Amino acid sequence: MINGVGRDIPDEIKGYGKVRHYKGAFEYVPTGNRYGPVKKFIKPGEDKIMTLRNVIKKYVKDGMTISFHHAFRNGDVLVNRVLDICSDLGIKNLRLFPSALFPCHEPVIEHIKNGVVTRIEGSMNGPVGEAVSHGILPYPAVLRSHGNRYRTVEAGEVHIDVAFIAAPTSDEYGNANGIYGPTPCGPLIYSKVDSLYADKVIVVTNNLVDYPAFPMTIKQTDVDHVVVEDNIGDPKGIVSGTLRITRSPRRLKIARTVVDVIRASGVLKDGFSFQAGAGGISLAVTKYLGEAMEEEDIVGSFGMGGSTRYLVDILKKGRLRCILEGQCFDEEAIKSLRENPNHVIVDPSFYANYNSRGNAVYKEDVAFLGATEIDTKFNVNVNTHSDGLLLHGIGGHQDVASGARICIITAPLLRDRIPVIVKDVTTVTTPGETVDVVVTDVGVAVNPRRKDLLEKLKAADIEVRDIKELQEEAYDIAGEPEKPETKDRIIAVIQYRDGSVIDVVKEVKE
Amino acid sequence: MINGVGRDIPDEIKGYGKVRHYKGAFEYVPTGNRYGPVKKFIKPGEDKIMTLRNVIKKYVKDGMTISFHHAFRNGDVLVNRVLDICSDLGIKNLRLFPSALFPCHEPVIEHIKNGVVTRIEGSMNGPVGEAVSHGILPYPAVLRSHGNRYRTVEAGEVHIDVAFIAAPTSDEYGNANGIYGPTPCGPLIYSKVDSLYADKVIVVTNNLVDYPAFPMTIKQTDVDHVVVEDNIGDPKGIVSGTLRITRSPRRLKIARTVVDVIRASGVLKDGFSFQAGAGGISLAVTKYLGEAMEEEDIVGSFGMGGSTRYLVDILKKGRLRCILEGQCFDEEAIKSLRENPNHVIVDPSFYANYNSRGNAVYKEDVAFLGATEIDTKFNVNVNTHSDGLLLHGIGGHQDVASGARICIITAPLLRDRIPVIVKDVTTVTTPGETVDVVVTDVGVAVNPRRKDLLEKLKAADIEVRDIKELQEEAYDIAGEPEKPETKDRIIAVIQYRDGSVIDVVKEVKE
Repeated sequence: MINGVGRDIPDEIKGYGKVRHYKGAFEYVPTGNRYGPVKKFIKPGEDKIMTLRNVIKKYVKDGMTISFHHAFRNGDVLVNRVLDICSDLGIKNLRLFPSALFPCHEPVIEHIKNGVVTRIEGSMNGPVGEAVSHGILPYPAVLRSHGNRYRTVEAGEVHIDVAFIAAPTSDEYGNANGIYGPTPCGPLIYSKVDSLYADKVIVVTNNLVDYPAFPMTIKQTDVDHVVVEDNIGDPKGIVSGTLRITRSPRRLKIARTVVDVIRASGVLKDGFSFQAGAGGISLAVTKYLGEAMEEEDIVGSFGMGGSTRYLVDILKKGRLRCILEGQCFDEEAIKSLRENPNHVIVDPSFYANYNSRGNAVYKEDVAFLGATEIDTKFNVNVNTHSDGLLLHGIGGHQDVASGARICIITAPLLRDRIPVIVKDVTTVTTPGETVDVVVTDVGVAVNPRRKDLLEKLKAADIEVRDIKELQEEAYDIAGEPEKPETKDRIIAVIQYRDGSVIDVVKEVKE
Repeated sequence: MINGVGRDIPDEIKGYGKVRHYKGAFEYVPTGNRYGPVKKFIKPGEDKIMTLRNVIKKYVKDGMTISFHHAFRNGDVLVNRVLDICSDLGIKNLRLFPSALFPCHEPVIEHIKNGVVTRIEGSMNGPVGEAVSHGILPYPAVLRSHGNRYRTVEAGEVHIDVAFIAAPTSDEYGNANGIYGPTPCGPLIYSKVDSLYADKVIVVTNNLVDYPAFPMTIKQTDVDHVVVEDNIGDPKGIVSGTLRITRSPRRLKIARTVVDVIRASGVLKDGFSFQAGAGGISLAVTKYLGEAMEEEDIVGSFGMGGSTRYLVDILKKGRLRCILEGQCFDEEAIKSLRENPNHVIVDPSFYANYNSRGNAVYKEDVAFLGATEIDTKFNVNVNTHSDGLLLHGIGGHQDVASGARICIITAPLLRDRIPVIVKDVTTVTTPGETVDVVVTDVGVAVNPRRKDLLEKLKAADIEVRDIKELQEEAYDIAGEPEKPETKDRIIAVIQYRDGSVIDVVKEVKE
């Protein structure tokens, strides 16, 4: 069937099942009830401490689903360690359900080859995604946004058998947080839904403290066992390459234009709210926005994390009432969570769960997000490269775009001499109907749906170009990009935030 | 059937249904799954603001269950206001599911007589309980502990159709808390389970603030509508008669003896934890305990609220690492919640939910609780008076007694010339197997199950008397109390914290 973004998706996908087709950003209306997790019980005095090996031996069986958070990002060690033990114990056919994988998870590829892991549902940033693009996984991978991962578990669409939660601080009853201890990683809040819904919840800590540990991001009521390990992850891995402000004059120009667009749109006033994020351009925008808020002497309401020191600076200067936090991208953000009561941890449901009575993203004036490709219908791809390789997760991209009153996509016209503005994106991650403005180094395009914005930008003397013109300019310089050569087999399903299928990724030819 | 505390309870109770009999404090092992609440949805831009009357008109239908919290205690106005509107709209047969009712809720009696309310499940302190004792309610009332109320909703044993949550501060999306605004009432955390499980969640506030309000004790994701009213409750009603330290020398002596018992038991050392509470004797014990901690130069781990300025003082002096808070009994406690990051709100599930992987009460060294009657089997009654009238709720009594390593019950031998230590309590609220020590003004009794404590108390030269001896002394002075004259009809069911039936209350004869 041709879905709401013009993609031809089969009604059933082998290894995935029946497809609910994407219709539109807010077309799906959820009905029925959420999943009711298992009732738990303990007698006073029962000891929850166990070794990781014994936990796995006792609870992880062939074919089960095991889950992890990604707060340590490229510093994570727990996924590999658990899979090594599973492999050692001869456990097979696991479904891996991490919130995200990073280059450090390259060893997962070996576990796929050995049959320990046969399914992955979660973001795959880097080598695992690349290997999956070449067809090594028996089942299609499933990619979901941050909000959709929460929605999916809550709705009972994925049942987690055993959740493993790397916790920089925990007491012996499993009250855990990620902001204290020798190796803090930020809020553990991506594991919140795992802790609420998994049959068995295992907190793995390198910092066992006296009862009660607080804040209780993960709670004793949900935690079955606590494991103490020497190493649960390296906070240095949190800061990756995408977490430095860009030095490219071309990209700094994009960032400045974004701030011009925000000013022109009339939202930069008291009560202003925005989505911050990582990526060189977004960091620069955050910095410039802070300066603009100073200049105009305004106090915004909230900045939504993932946060960095640039966002924290704005809070510190009193230019924001609060930061709502989902993940920390540097140490300064974690420090701020410890010290500033106006830096508030919120869970991915609060942030972006479609099946709820309201998200923080619905209250955002502005978001500025990146892209690997943008097409002339304003559809955005953040998952695959033009060669068809699946190299990135969705993150909160779909969630934020659908919610923010003004969703701005930033990208250079060309990247490594390959057009970024294209006729058709290789993969639709985020539907064009939720994208309002595209800012490139050679001009700004406004979605024709947003005549109001178009007028405001023109009134502010911002030159607005037709997005087709930008695409043509890109093709004039670099030529029309070749379509990736793919086989018929679907190796990944891209869900929209409401759980429908917005696109699929096919196996690339060698 | 004769249950685990020797009460003869029918296998089925008219208007209540099949009885699961109480067997023992930790005999019941929950199986199966929790209730899965309805999926919710909203589009960005949808306005949640409605009037109270329109909310009731739209959502409250005959036979439904409506719920409330009791954080304003005797200053609550919302229960009466909602019932008045329901009455006005001709709505009948409601089940009222408050966490507790107080004397201010006397108007509920009229609504029972008019058929607006036919069922009450919740604590009834004062006139409503008295009226129910005389048989005005068509269905038996059901009384539950704090932890059991949470367990019941989570398990799907009570389905809340519409939850009304009086909120001293809320934004227009329903993020609400009870610690800010002109009329703070403390944490709203007793409504947490209502907000998570009710079909419709209505926040009623007199202090609508800019988005986002935080802390988000109640969250936007769960809130269907926000109502703005001038008056949602009077914080002065929070402080009731039971919240002043006793001046009676007899009761102060009891308080001092409790501290002697705690010292003798060997737990008063670094890491010490205890349950605080209201009531004249408990307040005095809290104060004396704080002094003892100073004297011995120890730092405890946590004090569990409901808290008062006496508990807050201990925290302020650095003698406790934290307070875990469920409800505030005075303004100083609410102020502390605003100002002290070590004063931490926890929900009733964390505190005391039997169907969970662990409660704060299981980590308490000591609790000191009151009683209307204690019998020679150490069973405690906190619900009825010796005349059979149902005048008090359970509060956290069963929860705390079952969890704390040393559960001390404090009471004078006689109250208004009526024996408190009796052969058989009028109503069993808390089973004797969970009670360790009874401290009266004429001596201390230790449950024979606790030989360890008995030895420690003797070693510390605390005179320990047989509880039968205390009962006989009471009867010698005041005579054997007359049994209340009751009819056969059961007007209230007393559940144990695991949801089983521990006792019933019968209609009193006029």
